Amino acid sequence: MAPVHPLLWSSLRVFQVYGANTDVGKTIIATLLCRAANNIWKKEQTSYLKPVSTGPEDEADDRCTHIERYAPGVLRKTLLQYDLAMSPHAAAKGKLVPSDKELLSKIYQFASRSAAQQPGWLFIETAGGVHSPGPTGTTQADLYAAVRCPVVLIADSKLGGISLTISAFESLKLRGYDVESILIFQDSEYDNEKYLRNYFTASHGIPVASLPKPPPRAQDKDADARAMLQYYKNESQSSGIRNILEYLNQRHQARIERLESMPKDAYKRIWYPFTQHTSLSPEKIVAIDSARGDFFQTVVPKAERTVNQHIPVLQPSFDGSASWWTQGLGHGNPSLTMAAAYAGGRYGHVMFAGAVHEPALALADTLLCGMKNPRLTRVFYSDNGSTGVEVAVKMSLRASRLRYGWDANTDIGIIGLKGGYHGDTMGAMDCAEPSTYNENIEWYNGRGIWFDYPSVKCSRGQWIVETPDDLKADLGGNKTFTSLSDVFDIDSRESNDEQKAYEQYIERRLSHYVSKGRKFGALLIEPVVIGAGGMALVDPLYQRALVSVVRRSAKLFGSCPEPDTSDPTSWTGLPIIFDEVFTGLYRLGRFTASSFLKTEADISVHAKLLTGGFVPLSTTLASESIFHVFESEDKADALLHGHSYTAHPIGCQVAVESLRQMQAMEKKGEWDWAKSSDWSGRLVGQPDAMKPEVWSIWPWDLLYWISNQTDLIAGAWALGSVLAIHMNAADGLGYKSNAALKLQGSLLEGDRTTVWNIHSRVLGNVLYLMGGQKTSKDDITEIASMVKHALTAH
Amino acid sequence: MAPVHPLLWSSLRVFQVYGANTDVGKTIIATLLCRAANNIWKKEQTSYLKPVSTGPEDEADDRCTHIERYAPGVLRKTLLQYDLAMSPHAAAKGKLVPSDKELLSKIYQFASRSAAQQPGWLFIETAGGVHSPGPTGTTQADLYAAVRCPVVLIADSKLGGISLTISAFESLKLRGYDVESILIFQDSEYDNEKYLRNYFTASHGIPVASLPKPPPRAQDKDADARAMLQYYKNESQSSGIRNILEYLNQRHQARIERLESMPKDAYKRIWYPFTQHTSLSPEKIVAIDSARGDFFQTVVPKAERTVNQHIPVLQPSFDGSASWWTQGLGHGNPSLTMAAAYAGGRYGHVMFAGAVHEPALALADTLLCGMKNPRLTRVFYSDNGSTGVEVAVKMSLRASRLRYGWDANTDIGIIGLKGGYHGDTMGAMDCAEPSTYNENIEWYNGRGIWFDYPSVKCSRGQWIVETPDDLKADLGGNKTFTSLSDVFDIDSRESNDEQKAYEQYIERRLSHYVSKGRKFGALLIEPVVIGAGGMALVDPLYQRALVSVVRRSAKLFGSCPEPDTSDPTSWTGLPIIFDEVFTGLYRLGRFTASSFLKTEADISVHAKLLTGGFVPLSTTLASESIFHVFESEDKADALLHGHSYTAHPIGCQVAVESLRQMQAMEKKGEWDWAKSSDWSGRLVGQPDAMKPEVWSIWPWDLLYWISNQTDLIAGAWALGSVLAIHMNAADGLGYKSNAALKLQGSLLEGDRTTVWNIHSRVLGNVLYLMGGQKTSKDDITEIASMVKHALTAH
Repeated sequence: MAPVHPLLWSSLRVFQVYGANTDVGKTIIATLLCRAANNIWKKEQTSYLKPVSTGPEDEADDRCTHIERYAPGVLRKTLLQYDLAMSPHAAAKGKLVPSDKELLSKIYQFASRSAAQQPGWLFIETAGGVHSPGPTGTTQADLYAAVRCPVVLIADSKLGGISLTISAFESLKLRGYDVESILIFQDSEYDNEKYLRNYFTASHGIPVASLPKPPPRAQDKDADARAMLQYYKNESQSSGIRNILEYLNQRHQARIERLESMPKDAYKRIWYPFTQHTSLSPEKIVAIDSARGDFFQTVVPKAERTVNQHIPVLQPSFDGSASWWTQGLGHGNPSLTMAAAYAGGRYGHVMFAGAVHEPALALADTLLCGMKNPRLTRVFYSDNGSTGVEVAVKMSLRASRLRYGWDANTDIGIIGLKGGYHGDTMGAMDCAEPSTYNENIEWYNGRGIWFDYPSVKCSRGQWIVETPDDLKADLGGNKTFTSLSDVFDIDSRESNDEQKAYEQYIERRLSHYVSKGRKFGALLIEPVVIGAGGMALVDPLYQRALVSVVRRSAKLFGSCPEPDTSDPTSWTGLPIIFDEVFTGLYRLGRFTASSFLKTEADISVHAKLLTGGFVPLSTTLASESIFHVFESEDKADALLHGHSYTAHPIGCQVAVESLRQMQAMEKKGEWDWAKSSDWSGRLVGQPDAMKPEVWSIWPWDLLYWISNQTDLIAGAWALGSVLAIHMNAADGLGYKSNAALKLQGSLLEGDRTTVWNIHSRVLGNVLYLMGGQKTSKDDITEIASMVKHALTAH
Repeated sequence: MAPVHPLLWSSLRVFQVYGANTDVGKTIIATLLCRAANNIWKKEQTSYLKPVSTGPEDEADDRCTHIERYAPGVLRKTLLQYDLAMSPHAAAKGKLVPSDKELLSKIYQFASRSAAQQPGWLFIETAGGVHSPGPTGTTQADLYAAVRCPVVLIADSKLGGISLTISAFESLKLRGYDVESILIFQDSEYDNEKYLRNYFTASHGIPVASLPKPPPRAQDKDADARAMLQYYKNESQSSGIRNILEYLNQRHQARIERLESMPKDAYKRIWYPFTQHTSLSPEKIVAIDSARGDFFQTVVPKAERTVNQHIPVLQPSFDGSASWWTQGLGHGNPSLTMAAAYAGGRYGHVMFAGAVHEPALALADTLLCGMKNPRLTRVFYSDNGSTGVEVAVKMSLRASRLRYGWDANTDIGIIGLKGGYHGDTMGAMDCAEPSTYNENIEWYNGRGIWFDYPSVKCSRGQWIVETPDDLKADLGGNKTFTSLSDVFDIDSRESNDEQKAYEQYIERRLSHYVSKGRKFGALLIEPVVIGAGGMALVDPLYQRALVSVVRRSAKLFGSCPEPDTSDPTSWTGLPIIFDEVFTGLYRLGRFTASSFLKTEADISVHAKLLTGGFVPLSTTLASESIFHVFESEDKADALLHGHSYTAHPIGCQVAVESLRQMQAMEKKGEWDWAKSSDWSGRLVGQPDAMKPEVWSIWPWDLLYWISNQTDLIAGAWALGSVLAIHMNAADGLGYKSNAALKLQGSLLEGDRTTVWNIHSRVLGNVLYLMGGQKTSKDDITEIASMVKHALTAH
């Protein structure tokens, strides 16, 4: 089943009619809008849709009859009909109920057919108030948010109606709806109109228009009908309703024009990150109207729409990079929005030096507790992964320098892995080996040494731990495993002495560098996966060997007092920094990537998924033994780092909510489908309670298939929400390769029949796809088939 | 008049009763709560407050009579009584209406008296729905947000009530309210209770409790009263209401315990920015419950409360550092909250490389347009001032290197000012001269030269442009001006040739460094004010001279092609970077600080006030001639910088709203009070249309007075929202000085009678205070008198 489609066509003006309450006149005003539209745009087709109707059939049907009688010529339809006059979720009780996605699909089909036929209008009337539950129990404001119709909100003209109207507006707004017009019945007693006009026009620029009340209900049915007909006749020709429709028409056109012109404007004014602008053109810039769940709603190129009128302006695009690896709980997630809004309302931002607020403390607790790492006791806040790494480096350099007694001018480097990348600020860049990313940066100065490493790939259905050719003499040749669980079963592998060669090699290399006078201040690695450096899965046993060797080699790095062995959480050798910015917090399926290595960092950096894809925030967790290094009588000895928005409450509150949700999902087993053997196959190995649980939302079937396309594919792997496809590259592997661009293009081309596509990012010859933590099995199945299709047609 | 006080005492459990709609039973449930509390806590005093009551006097009074009759022994009061049965703002029409602040003050007085007498409960009943307007027209949810009472929300049990209850809840939540309990009348027909219980318990952890409906209204008045009495008698003794009260009691205690324990917990788990932890103790950590407008609500030290029972747990603290210079439109500003929530609901975060979304484009337009700098055409987004500066430096180094034909390994420095500071990431740190901030940072490597400068201070009521002693031979001695306008009248000063000496000196120094082989890539300055480096006002004429000399000295910096004079927006000499992170966007009263210098940057960095004190966001604006430097056929030549949350929609949307509001305020003349001559006195000079408009929210009277305390004060200045007090220092000027700590302590001590204080930050011997863009004249007047008091007692 295709993803949810937004409802936007050039030719069809779709508006959703929401009410501030039940019984505010939604049906009457919708009828009036329909009748007037039908009169004014005579050559077009006006339609009316009631997705869910409740009440006894004759009464509910009355609504369609009402339209038929009072707005003849208007195409009308009810999708679901429930007999009881109550909220749809209650009325639907015990009945077969379509899922939210199915209901949205039916609405899309209706609108799509209307759009295909001729230009026109479509008014979709909701049931009850904005948060009245739909058939499945999801409230309508949430249910319909993904289709993002512009809203006509019917205000409440009765006593208390000001409050209800503003609150209804806010509930819509915080789900990303655009309320285009507020309509209200005239009422001289309460005159809510006046207050609301002032309120909405002044602070939101939204026009409030009023309409005369319908005639009071007459006892005599015929008289009632006559009076209503007269009302509709008069009002549908009034300048008031005409102005409203003209305004809505204009807003519809303006929305489309803006969406179409945005790429051109952006091309002129925006300086894009990591982008060579000579290879950019307005056509290549994706205009994003909005996003929901795992999908962007993006503008379909105009050329395609000109050919085929029924093609909508917007299409769902799977956000295959999880928005640069940040997205977790779905775009526009209402709980995260509420968390952000609550903290915004409670604090805005409050300065953090020497102060404390609830979200910062709660987040510190959640992280320290969730890491299950007895070393980590302290949380330092900053703004993004790059600043978080700079903080970590400042911490560890000071610790090492003081322990080994080096003076302040000593040239101290870090130990890292080839291809490791830790961010774009200068200090973080200096932690990466010279590469395309940084070789042209004037102040770049790679400070350290970077080890090559054995990497893990699936090829021809087998798991290979692949040693780079020039290290084979040292590390031994490639090794083959039948499951990824076996690769990650590092305890068993250690008991087979597999790590011995690794450790000997690492020790030898370190001794070599130290003998040349090099000094080191930290081991800094991305545990399990090298991200920006090429989406490489590193042999976890090798990373653990690195940590072990560094920890036990204090004597090698310099002369220092005998380590205090009484405290097992004290750092030894060098501080171990894990950059979990990408790999942590459930990206790979677990709270912490360090658990895959069964070892614990002294300093751990987190960002990206920390706020579930909402706002920038980073934490650098540290051990008490690192913290104490900065204590002295001199304020200049403190860790002098801190951004203005350090520990901003909005970010912290969103992070608390995000982690709470992901931890609850883990506890409830919400990823069990992905762990089941029919889905994961040998990816996690045959069920074996003794083996480590490694799993992925990407099906083994897909991975197996990909790994057998050996003409195209060098290998692939999947873990947690990540799928990485390493393409063969004639132009050399790495960032400069263009080998993955064709596949990226095919996925972006997508399925032109059902009009949706996959937006992905490449890293040289690697194309990766990433789901969120709530991505559904259904969606993954669809995406998997599109990937196969694209590779088959390659 | 003292600032708004939150309502929190250990001994008094204050709850605010809000209704999801009118007519949901607020009064009945409040009466029940009062009666039950009074029964259960017999030795305590239960009170009931109706701040605003509407309806004919007898009917409205009925509410108090109702309490009197059915909850005897409960202390009851109505503060404002309006006869008409409509929304308070309408009922109050034509009457003398207290300001919001006055009404809150009356509520505080009532609660305070209750708290002083004996332990107890206070239930405050609101009128109508959550957004029903109060007497001045402010909706109640906004009006009462600052006092942040925990809320008992009365749900609506009728048809449509689910929607109204959820929306009401959301309106409260996004103003930072904690809804502690949701109460609803039992109703078997609609059973909203069931849905709401599931909804609120599952996703918000808020208990939903139900109460039997009161008896239907009987015709006979006496019978009605008897039935009601029976109802209250029964229900007030039910386990249901007892459980509710026990829960509320427990939440009250838990809130206070948490507020009291937060500093201790933070002391153990948080690693604070820019903080020497040995000089920290839990007692020194300020626990911030919330913040509103310019005030934090902070915990009063327990020792003070133990001495005097009537002292509340929370007190307002003026946020004197504007939360590290970020705050502008008031903490918890509801428009900014709505902007954040809207973008959260519409997008969450969406990745930005090769994509565009509305808020990012709108913000780019707003900034480029607002700067009125024809050079600036491009916007690059990043996360904070420090990253924004790194981006600026990367831009300018590349531009200079390519123009002057230096190879990639050339050691290129920047030209800056002594004490200039641009952020804490390594690249930004390297732009600052060696100092306390960075001398201990292992990788710090100051790259550039830093000019000393003449600074501006008010001393003994006169404005002095003070030349550092060792530059006097070059720059001439101090100069004296009668007004700050005269100092900023740089055109007149240029026509007096005042800048000549500056330019000659600058040229000579530059030649000296170049002759020693130094190469430079940018002029990087904070226009007008050096912020973190000591809150120094720099002679604007000197900064303009720097820019002029650098721009015309291409030949000096290296050999380069003749500059293209056809495009006046092209950079010449070196790219000029203005770091307006602190000084821009109305902090000094104008959209851009560059307007004070009457010169235009090639690259301009903005952050802090950009989002009005909400979330981190930064923009680096650049000229087209800088942008073109990065264009080539090679993707490695691109500006390879970009954080995951680049141009995050929430930040951009908040920034658009924040700038829109500040620009509107400027246009409407909302700072005219601060510009008036009775307020600003000679600060802006005698009214003279020919002189530049410089103004401050700090009154001239205060500045004059301070500047005459020559025993204590070396000088002071005020501009825009900033007041800087430079104390004399026996321990040497600068960051390590402790000279301002005593004044800071006195301000934090504050006014113990009215229980509020001033939270400020010091930079060595400088104490500064900063308002927001909405700070009121009244508040400034109060603060000014507290500052005088503190200095007098010094």
